[in-house]
Amino acid sequence: MIKLAHLLVATFGVLLALNGCLARQSLGVPPQLQNECNLDNLDVLQATETIKSEAGQIQYWDHNHPQIRCAGVSVSRLVIEQGGLYLPTFFSSPKISYVVQGMGISGRVIPGCAETFMDSQPMQGQQQGKPWQGQGQGQQGQQGQQGQQGQQGQQGQQGFRDMHQKVEHVRHGDVIAVTPGSAHWIYNTGDQPLVIISLLDIANYQNQLDRNPRVFRLAGNNPQGGFGGPQQQEQQQNMLSGFDPQVLAQALKIDVRLAQELQNKQDNRGNIVRVKGPFQVVRPPPRQSYESEKWRHPRGPPQSPQDNGLEETICSMRTHENIDDPARADVYKPNLGRVTSVNSLTLPILQYVRLSATRGIIQGNSMVLPKYNMNANEILYCTRGQARIQVVNDNGQNVLDQQVQKGQLVVIPQGFAYVVQSQNNFEWISFKTNANAMISTLAGRTSALRALPLEVLTNAYQISLEEARRIKFNTLETTLTHARSGQQQLIDQIVEA
Amino acid sequence: MIKLAHLLVATFGVLLALNGCLARQSLGVPPQLQNECNLDNLDVLQATETIKSEAGQIQYWDHNHPQIRCAGVSVSRLVIEQGGLYLPTFFSSPKISYVVQGMGISGRVIPGCAETFMDSQPMQGQQQGKPWQGQGQGQQGQQGQQGQQGQQGQQGQQGFRDMHQKVEHVRHGDVIAVTPGSAHWIYNTGDQPLVIISLLDIANYQNQLDRNPRVFRLAGNNPQGGFGGPQQQEQQQNMLSGFDPQVLAQALKIDVRLAQELQNKQDNRGNIVRVKGPFQVVRPPPRQSYESEKWRHPRGPPQSPQDNGLEETICSMRTHENIDDPARADVYKPNLGRVTSVNSLTLPILQYVRLSATRGIIQGNSMVLPKYNMNANEILYCTRGQARIQVVNDNGQNVLDQQVQKGQLVVIPQGFAYVVQSQNNFEWISFKTNANAMISTLAGRTSALRALPLEVLTNAYQISLEEARRIKFNTLETTLTHARSGQQQLIDQIVEA
Amino acid sequence: MIKLAHLLVATFGVLLALNGCLARQSLGVPPQLQNECNLDNLDVLQATETIKSEAGQIQYWDHNHPQIRCAGVSVSRLVIEQGGLYLPTFFSSPKISYVVQGMGISGRVIPGCAETFMDSQPMQGQQQGKPWQGQGQGQQGQQGQQGQQGQQGQQGQQGFRDMHQKVEHVRHGDVIAVTPGSAHWIYNTGDQPLVIISLLDIANYQNQLDRNPRVFRLAGNNPQGGFGGPQQQEQQQNMLSGFDPQVLAQALKIDVRLAQELQNKQDNRGNIVRVKGPFQVVRPPPRQSYESEKWRHPRGPPQSPQDNGLEETICSMRTHENIDDPARADVYKPNLGRVTSVNSLTLPILQYVRLSATRGIIQGNSMVLPKYNMNANEILYCTRGQARIQVVNDNGQNVLDQQVQKGQLVVIPQGFAYVVQSQNNFEWISFKTNANAMISTLAGRTSALRALPLEVLTNAYQISLEEARRIKFNTLETTLTHARSGQQQLIDQIVEA
Repeated sequence: MIKLAHLLVATFGVLLALNGCLARQSLGVPPQLQNECNLDNLDVLQATETIKSEAGQIQYWDHNHPQIRCAGVSVSRLVIEQGGLYLPTFFSSPKISYVVQGMGISGRVIPGCAETFMDSQPMQGQQQGKPWQGQGQGQQGQQGQQGQQGQQGQQGQQGFRDMHQKVEHVRHGDVIAVTPGSAHWIYNTGDQPLVIISLLDIANYQNQLDRNPRVFRLAGNNPQGGFGGPQQQEQQQNMLSGFDPQVLAQALKIDVRLAQELQNKQDNRGNIVRVKGPFQVVRPPPRQSYESEKWRHPRGPPQSPQDNGLEETICSMRTHENIDDPARADVYKPNLGRVTSVNSLTLPILQYVRLSATRGIIQGNSMVLPKYNMNANEILYCTRGQARIQVVNDNGQNVLDQQVQKGQLVVIPQGFAYVVQSQNNFEWISFKTNANAMISTLAGRTSALRALPLEVLTNAYQISLEEARRIKFNTLETTLTHARSGQQQLIDQIVEA
Repeated sequence: MIKLAHLLVATFGVLLALNGCLARQSLGVPPQLQNECNLDNLDVLQATETIKSEAGQIQYWDHNHPQIRCAGVSVSRLVIEQGGLYLPTFFSSPKISYVVQGMGISGRVIPGCAETFMDSQPMQGQQQGKPWQGQGQGQQGQQGQQGQQGQQGQQGQQGFRDMHQKVEHVRHGDVIAVTPGSAHWIYNTGDQPLVIISLLDIANYQNQLDRNPRVFRLAGNNPQGGFGGPQQQEQQQNMLSGFDPQVLAQALKIDVRLAQELQNKQDNRGNIVRVKGPFQVVRPPPRQSYESEKWRHPRGPPQSPQDNGLEETICSMRTHENIDDPARADVYKPNLGRVTSVNSLTLPILQYVRLSATRGIIQGNSMVLPKYNMNANEILYCTRGQARIQVVNDNGQNVLDQQVQKGQLVVIPQGFAYVVQSQNNFEWISFKTNANAMISTLAGRTSALRALPLEVLTNAYQISLEEARRIKFNTLETTLTHARSGQQQLIDQIVEA
Repeated sequence: MIKLAHLLVATFGVLLALNGCLARQSLGVPPQLQNECNLDNLDVLQATETIKSEAGQIQYWDHNHPQIRCAGVSVSRLVIEQGGLYLPTFFSSPKISYVVQGMGISGRVIPGCAETFMDSQPMQGQQQGKPWQGQGQGQQGQQGQQGQQGQQGQQGQQGFRDMHQKVEHVRHGDVIAVTPGSAHWIYNTGDQPLVIISLLDIANYQNQLDRNPRVFRLAGNNPQGGFGGPQQQEQQQNMLSGFDPQVLAQALKIDVRLAQELQNKQDNRGNIVRVKGPFQVVRPPPRQSYESEKWRHPRGPPQSPQDNGLEETICSMRTHENIDDPARADVYKPNLGRVTSVNSLTLPILQYVRLSATRGIIQGNSMVLPKYNMNANEILYCTRGQARIQVVNDNGQNVLDQQVQKGQLVVIPQGFAYVVQSQNNFEWISFKTNANAMISTLAGRTSALRALPLEVLTNAYQISLEEARRIKFNTLETTLTHARSGQQQLIDQIVEA
């Protein structure tokens, strides 16, 4: 009898723990337990944790929050101050990012690809005007030249200061895809903070570990710990710091003192550091603004006899796409706004990472017509303005009806219907967990209701043929409409469409 | 010491809970906990829950049953009475169905595809005999014409009453695949109940939510609640009912009263409603019976200048295939029965949903030779007759040896060997969780035993070469055989084969 | 108050159970609970369980060990004594194996493929010297001929003793892939034990059951039970033993007594049995040694009118590849060692099973440069020698720094950096859970550090340009280097490279 009581108590304890009230502690409850999608009530989510670095900060959304965990993702916002450098980092999950503000240059490591970006020494004869040289190249070239005497080996007769893999410009409006294990760095070249919102798709087939986000740092550290889950409260070092310095020294053929410096152990700058002086990295000139977008992947001429042919394939795979250019809009209505998507058909690397993104900008009192995602979860982040968002679950219950503002996040699970009503402009970026996310609208010319025969509507809703016809044919827009009320502006809607 | 006792009690509580005795409550135990495949004892399963509607009912198998949960599926049987309409519904998981009985018409919503089915008004000149017109067209056309005056917009000069997406006939023997998020409706056009057995593949990669089946309704509702899991006991509304009626009115450009009617809130008819009067939907003439099966996808001529070319690809993708036609049999033995499969090679959409199906009909005292599924779980549903089914698990234990009758379900996990012995005819449909499910038989001309060298058999079973030769070569059939006993009919078997 | 205390106790009980202290019992805790990757401390793992058979043994690593469970695999080592036969067995998960020692012949059952290996009777006229005949063929052919009089059916006029599916030679250095559900057997033809290390990829998409390894036996048994998890302590029979012998007799058209012998119920030999007398299986001559490796897939001429054309596709799919041949090395340094990989580009079946393997042999005091796996977990098994292995986790902590010896296993999770330092030679085989596993090195000519611009290094590690240049350019090797210390051998390294 006592045992039965204990059993019930025990069971309750488990249930409570599983429902998340105790589970957020770092005691070790497996996150799978929290992976149940309890979606009767959604929240508008704010970042809950900030990790400060010398020249910027990273803000995280709690990846143990039921909605975020159900979607199988982790979301963070990276803020790099002017002259700040986000040190090389990689993840075990694919990542998709959107540059909310600012501009910078970025490099990704693709193992085995040639270092196709090489500077040249000014005193060597055969160079002309080199638009791909970093600034400050001239005065530093001399010093660089001296340093490379002993080590440059095979390039001895052909002077250069540095050679490295591709460096690309990123700027406001870019969607950037990063594959698992690919280390990448970003430097803020602009005169305002560079702000990037990123989603890690932890549930992706390419993440072969558990459903915790995992950050691997080639350099830098995180003295304060963080990023939720099992890593909480632990200081995070760069991955070189876990090796015996002797081994590092042997591997890199350097002395032990220098190997120790690679471990950043006395470093408290975090993962975003301030660059002293000019940042002299070989790179092409910045992309022009929207008008030249179609020629936006300039590279220097082949520069090295080491080119292995690979650079036409994986090594030169396009990894970003600007979706703020109005000329690229998929849906465009002059006084209402525009919606642009990037998926595996426009950016092939997305097929590999199985993610896509949609950018929307709506003006005045516009409305995004009600719709649902057929085959993806959507993570919507507001970059500007505010809107009222309503979300409906599979029971037909309203599970969210709130204002969403700049910096806030909404998770919209697969199949859940939602509507967005702008209040004085609204801009957002949505990440979707499918390389070809499909939506189905509930109103408008391509909507599900319009695809149904009138007889289905009349019988479903017990309405007249005439009413069914209004439901099917009144709204002629496809995605966006004015959010004024009802009948009286019907005619000008039709005219406008 | 006391703590240890409690700990053990607590652990037991967990174990009991996990084993399912408490887990079926809707208290919130994550289904992942029950996802362990405890397969030491299989059951023949009956539907456990019936949800009645005005013109039919849906019966569910408990998706929390260990076997069904291990297979990662959910199974239901839909019964639509004469004149009943199953209202537009979609799921977050792929679905495969088999029409057990009856006939009907069905439509699926594919967002962005043109409304290629359009009726024409009798008073317009250029029509000839229109076999694809709905019945009752004539007398309703007049009324329809008046109603569309104000709204029809761009089709003003070309009269029509309705235009909508493709409508197809379904009938006894059809296997139908439905992609996630694709809303579909079915109307019973026959003179007997239309019975459809369906499987949702919840563990499919396309379901991005948890392992609960989720039903989304464009119309209709479920006043009594049900469908197991977290939705239990809650009334389920259609998805429009979760929106503010003002918003719906604005989105559809209708008045608020009509928007409220779309929410079906005062409706108690459920998800299958009775159609009053004729069901006037534009559709092609019904498919002919088996003899014309190869021309079975007639569509009307291109009807609309809106045709966007898509209808030759996704929009016209074939979604069903009749597997009752004896002419399509993959295995056919005149006095024993036949077996027919549909997989991604015969119905390409199955590649996308990663499911396939097998239909079997055996007569008299036949036997389906022992076999196992190499790369799929099988969910076998008996549509007629009865049979004895034996299933053997990976330990060589007999985990099922029972009669299976019409309306019962057996889950056969991947790798488990089973044999089916007909008792006075037996007909079944098997759904398999792989687009190209492969079987390996344990007896007969294509069997695993026959593929082995004699020496392997003699050493494995400690039998003579002569006995091994009998094991390999005695049974010449491949899938079906007579279920009489032993040696005496050996010769006529050989002759027959 | 008391309840609260119990609740805490209960919760602790759960947490403890989940952390694995109680979880290894066979009480039924779902393994998903243990699936959390707790990777703060890795171990060098030994096989923990040995199952002895008449002519060999199978050793298992505990698949519930957190590291192995995190990687989603199960590992075993099969030892077949001289003249031993590993009886036909299949799995619900894909398998990849490496032959550590010895040689043998192996057959796999591919349902539906023709029995393309057929012997011929010596008294029939049209044969010449038959190098593919089993030894001992002559004296047994007579007896065989008598036995087949009654049963051979369609081959009556064309004498043969046996026909079966393809048999292939396996030997030291072969990597072998096996698809789920495909029964396979192995016979030791050599004069030393045949040792094979195998990995089951339980987390593979093709395993549709839970995360327990499942062994299915066509013949043989496991009287002592074992293999961890839910099967523990239960005797395991072959899958035929679960059927009613009457049913087997009917299916195979044999008498019930013989059907009972197929069930091996009185058999205590286990799954590896000793072959009495010569093992007379039709097979091609053994592959030549390395020099003829490129013609290594000889098959006899087409032998049977039953050939169905399939044997050019699935039926003849190549399933193994020798990676010990130095001529195949991907990385080769005469005095350091070599590294060879097999992936889906070299062995296409690996695309289907989504696995790959790497073989490494290093000599003297060599070092495998630090690196990490970008998109796979790696399971490294030492086949000879010993080495010091250091592994670093995502927090930059050293989670393993130990000697690894012959017969030991290390799990290296995705993204974790590691370095291997040979101590008096070291040989290993690594299985990777991706058909195209990619690595990223942290030192050397193709390393991540070299791909970075100098400026990133100087700012990241707060070092001078000169030091950054040393880090990038000092090590010119790509994968292997000498493990001597530091600077003094710098010059000869450069010369050597």
